Amino acid sequence: MSTSNAPETPARVTARYWIESARPLEAAAAIMAGEQSTGTFVRVAGETDELREHCGARIESLVELGEAAAPSLPGASAPQSGPARWRTAEVTLSWPLHNFGPSLPNLLATVAGNLWELKPFSGMRLLDLTLPPQFLGRYRGPRFGIAGTRALTGVHGRPVIGTIIKPSVGLSPAATAERVAAIAAAGIDFVKDDELQADGPHCPFEERLSAVMRVLDAHADRTGKRVMYAVNITGDIDEMLRRHDLVVAAGNTCVMVSLNSIGLPALAALRAQCQVAIHGHRNGWGLLGRSPAIGMSFVAWQKLWRLAGIDHVHVNGLDNKFCESNESVIASARECLTPMFPQPHPGCEVMPVFSSGQSALQAPDTYRALGSVDLIHACGGSIMGHPGGVAAGVRSLHQGWEAAVSGIPLADYARTHRELAATLAAFGR
Amino acid sequence: MSTSNAPETPARVTARYWIESARPLEAAAAIMAGEQSTGTFVRVAGETDELREHCGARIESLVELGEAAAPSLPGASAPQSGPARWRTAEVTLSWPLHNFGPSLPNLLATVAGNLWELKPFSGMRLLDLTLPPQFLGRYRGPRFGIAGTRALTGVHGRPVIGTIIKPSVGLSPAATAERVAAIAAAGIDFVKDDELQADGPHCPFEERLSAVMRVLDAHADRTGKRVMYAVNITGDIDEMLRRHDLVVAAGNTCVMVSLNSIGLPALAALRAQCQVAIHGHRNGWGLLGRSPAIGMSFVAWQKLWRLAGIDHVHVNGLDNKFCESNESVIASARECLTPMFPQPHPGCEVMPVFSSGQSALQAPDTYRALGSVDLIHACGGSIMGHPGGVAAGVRSLHQGWEAAVSGIPLADYARTHRELAATLAAFGR
Repeated sequence: MSTSNAPETPARVTARYWIESARPLEAAAAIMAGEQSTGTFVRVAGETDELREHCGARIESLVELGEAAAPSLPGASAPQSGPARWRTAEVTLSWPLHNFGPSLPNLLATVAGNLWELKPFSGMRLLDLTLPPQFLGRYRGPRFGIAGTRALTGVHGRPVIGTIIKPSVGLSPAATAERVAAIAAAGIDFVKDDELQADGPHCPFEERLSAVMRVLDAHADRTGKRVMYAVNITGDIDEMLRRHDLVVAAGNTCVMVSLNSIGLPALAALRAQCQVAIHGHRNGWGLLGRSPAIGMSFVAWQKLWRLAGIDHVHVNGLDNKFCESNESVIASARECLTPMFPQPHPGCEVMPVFSSGQSALQAPDTYRALGSVDLIHACGGSIMGHPGGVAAGVRSLHQGWEAAVSGIPLADYARTHRELAATLAAFGR
Repeated sequence: MSTSNAPETPARVTARYWIESARPLEAAAAIMAGEQSTGTFVRVAGETDELREHCGARIESLVELGEAAAPSLPGASAPQSGPARWRTAEVTLSWPLHNFGPSLPNLLATVAGNLWELKPFSGMRLLDLTLPPQFLGRYRGPRFGIAGTRALTGVHGRPVIGTIIKPSVGLSPAATAERVAAIAAAGIDFVKDDELQADGPHCPFEERLSAVMRVLDAHADRTGKRVMYAVNITGDIDEMLRRHDLVVAAGNTCVMVSLNSIGLPALAALRAQCQVAIHGHRNGWGLLGRSPAIGMSFVAWQKLWRLAGIDHVHVNGLDNKFCESNESVIASARECLTPMFPQPHPGCEVMPVFSSGQSALQAPDTYRALGSVDLIHACGGSIMGHPGGVAAGVRSLHQGWEAAVSGIPLADYARTHRELAATLAAFGR
């Protein structure tokens, strides 16, 4: 090591949390830092100052917010005398990367490990993560991402328009293919399995894939358009890799996985071999993200999966039928389009997938909030239930996005575009 | 199909939830069942009665509980007229196994998928799961479990006594081995890495394993006793498998993984090749389990991992320094010892690991509540900080359990057992 130059600063990982505690906030933050690095409940023999300096987590910032009237979670300790004040704050901690190395599972054990069981806390939420580019030496990020998905679908200058095969489960392979044939004929760009559809005996994966690819191949032969089919390969690792190979052999361009069901190492293993786009389904996300008092933000969560290799990820949609607010949906989608690492590193941007109660009606607000057409717009009822039929449903989406991008109010554009007019009449509020 | 016999009832998975909703509870439960099987927000074309009969989720029971004063989670919808009443209930749903097949990741997408984002719910917690034995055709369950762990450690008729290497991170391989040598000489049965210790450049996995095995081999040569070392192999799949092979080659009997960091498919892939006991660390558990209003109970969670192949799992400990109640700890531990499947199928029982602020003091209450010595008792300060030294610390644990099993009060037993007496004096309340 050179003594004439300043020593290189070791790379660090930072994590920002919302916390709630009846302890003085500085002390509470110090407990988090200690527990997740060199410390334990008491200082132990061998926890030297040098070791703390080298491996200790650091409090980078602490911003006090308001007080909560009551503890948000049970089990938290309060001072033994006087009434407890449940203060809230945002705290940013950092760790030297050398504590765990550029390993996503070991990163998780540090930034999302025992913290939620610590007694001084009555609320804890991981809000954001910043990872050093060393992780790119280990993980591959999206192989296709936005540009690759556009190349695979041949869709440029507008969102990829998609839909979901319904009913979710229960259709046979032949019935599934029949639905896909109708949707493809209507001009759709993208079609996906429901996350509940996997490899059950009533609709085995291989038969479903074959049946659907027969109709999509015929459609491509006829029209020159290759519809992307996000076929659900979620399963154990050997199954997913085998199904991936079948997907590639069949000439399909996409696989879908339920991210929370498979875990980061399984996604990384799939990505290492994957030759098609990976459509990341976030089902189970509500369990992690819905409560403001506990869990993990989508902003933090999606970075892990982008690094591990997804190309698309679900973000819900504006005016959705779930319980998420529009602000939250847009924040999630923006994040997908924001680089994770500075130039010259790859940004690992991915396509946000808007779904749930979607139609042309949401195009203007979505475009205004996102400032981009880099998204998959997955619509069900507004396509399948369009008064003019499925093809009219797809055209109404195109028209809605044309109006949105041109800054023309939907009602105005609808005067000369009857499929959009029908959507406004059928689904408008 | 025979017409003279009743048709075979298809195997079903059942899941019990706690829910909170302002909708009539029957309607709320029906929404859960619909969303997670054949339905979507509206009944779609093709969702025939026959398809619903064949693939629909079923409400098996609904038990109304009290009302909540206010919604526990934000984003829930309430009736448009009149004041909302936030009712709570336990609801049990069931699904035909053929919807997803005996696949843990696809099971998760069904029982723990989009449910948490459904607007009618202001609270949702998965309390328990019952899986049909068909899952045993796909997953292996624990290879060693309780009997195997006893055989590997040579410990019978009492708990396996263990400790954790501290400081958590920052020790070199040589310093780690030095600590392990002292602990082994003290008579410990089991020693584990902290979950923060993985494969960082300051303590690379291979060097740590080699250094520790040198001292444990020397100890075995000297005493005939093989100390089990739960070495943390958490990482990506290829890393874990490679590290596993090194562990086996080194003659060690255990590997440790952070379950929430790796995911079920990675554990199943490890289990398929694993020749040693798998020590399952539950860090991150608090994020899933701490809130009463959202998440998943340990009871449900641990069944998934047992089936996928862990041999041990952390359950916290009585009077622990985290925020979990003693009742919850004991319920978790009991569950680990309860068969998951009826005879003649394997029960997949695993060793519960008690840790956090543990000493001989907790032995009587633990034994009384659990009715078993089938556990790993992992103690830190009460061994390392015992006034008589580390060996006295281990002996005090043996004495505490002797007293507990014999039904002799600790204070009485301590009269003739000075290491226990020193523990009572140093750590008693």
